[in-house]
Amino acid sequence: MSPPGVPDIVVGRLPMYLRELTKMAEEGKEITSSQELGKRLGISSTQIRKDLSQFGEFGKQGTGYNINFLIIQLQIILKVEDVWDVVLVGAGDLGHAIANYGGFSDRGFHLSLIFDNDPKKIGHQVGSYIVKDVSSLVKDIRARNIRVAMLAVPTVDAQTVTDRLIEAGIHAILCYSQTSIRVPEGVKVEYIDPVLHLQHMTYYLP
Amino acid sequence: MSPPGVPDIVVGRLPMYLRELTKMAEEGKEITSSQELGKRLGISSTQIRKDLSQFGEFGKQGTGYNINFLIIQLQIILKVEDVWDVVLVGAGDLGHAIANYGGFSDRGFHLSLIFDNDPKKIGHQVGSYIVKDVSSLVKDIRARNIRVAMLAVPTVDAQTVTDRLIEAGIHAILCYSQTSIRVPEGVKVEYIDPVLHLQHMTYYLP
Repeated sequence: MSPPGVPDIVVGRLPMYLRELTKMAEEGKEITSSQELGKRLGISSTQIRKDLSQFGEFGKQGTGYNINFLIIQLQIILKVEDVWDVVLVGAGDLGHAIANYGGFSDRGFHLSLIFDNDPKKIGHQVGSYIVKDVSSLVKDIRARNIRVAMLAVPTVDAQTVTDRLIEAGIHAILCYSQTSIRVPEGVKVEYIDPVLHLQHMTYYLP
Repeated sequence: MSPPGVPDIVVGRLPMYLRELTKMAEEGKEITSSQELGKRLGISSTQIRKDLSQFGEFGKQGTGYNINFLIIQLQIILKVEDVWDVVLVGAGDLGHAIANYGGFSDRGFHLSLIFDNDPKKIGHQVGSYIVKDVSSLVKDIRARNIRVAMLAVPTVDAQTVTDRLIEAGIHAILCYSQTSIRVPEGVKVEYIDPVLHLQHMTYYLP
């Protein structure tokens, strides 16, 4: 289901399609078209058809897409038909917001462990989790064979924690810290930094 | 400084370059190369040279880039050499984390107003801000001529609030709500949803 050579920018749009299709299904819709999906997402229908065609034939000319079928296909392509355990490092304001975010479990992810290095936070509850001491991070992640991490630590700690996550076997890091992190080849990193998005938009403002 | 037709994906990388160059300047560095910048960002040096060359000549073959000069040029290109006032709607966990995020002011943005519709939150302090009643949103935003907004409201309220932000004259929305929002042509929208990033990465995991 994952043909080689699909541009990363195309892969990056699939989660948006999946999110919108799931919303349509929740609204009780059963069939959609690239026109309708495109209108809801602000993307051209041509783009959507072209993106999806990289992975197979998901709809018939004139009859549109079966929403539930397309949802399942996208889940398989993105490998979220099962649930990934995820570790969160950093139990500050942002860590709290992430831990209380309700959108993980039905979209392929389960927050399993939260770590911090602050004695005032260790052992305390954040959301429905008990914060663990970061000193046991490598051991705990290995014990559960977790491969996905979210990083919400102060900038100054980001690289040190990253190195330990790599040591523990993490293969994908979503970095909320406001700095670039260095990882070995094969480890995926994505950044969430509001200013990167804001600056991307102000480029276009008159 | 903003030539027409630069691909959006190129524009989207400029804020990353600016962030890393700023970090280098803070480290006391004065000169860098596309090789060094690329290594720190996990991007090829060819890509960086190609991206920057869309906007002009910023370095000389063999002598590299003057970091402070390139920072200023990127700030001008991204229109963050001055400061944009930004409004935040939503004073929940996420709103708290955003309000307490320290990285706005020296990167071109100033959080000016926070709104919520919850009587328990209105009038209370979040970070260094007093939460205002969302019912005065249009009036307050117009009075200050604010054009950039961050949206951190529950999914169910996202479109309603978006419509009011548009009415108030907002031209760029950073949407943390887990849903797509519809905006008129010319209004920019970017999304921050951790699951979109996580799913983008799991695609590549074995």
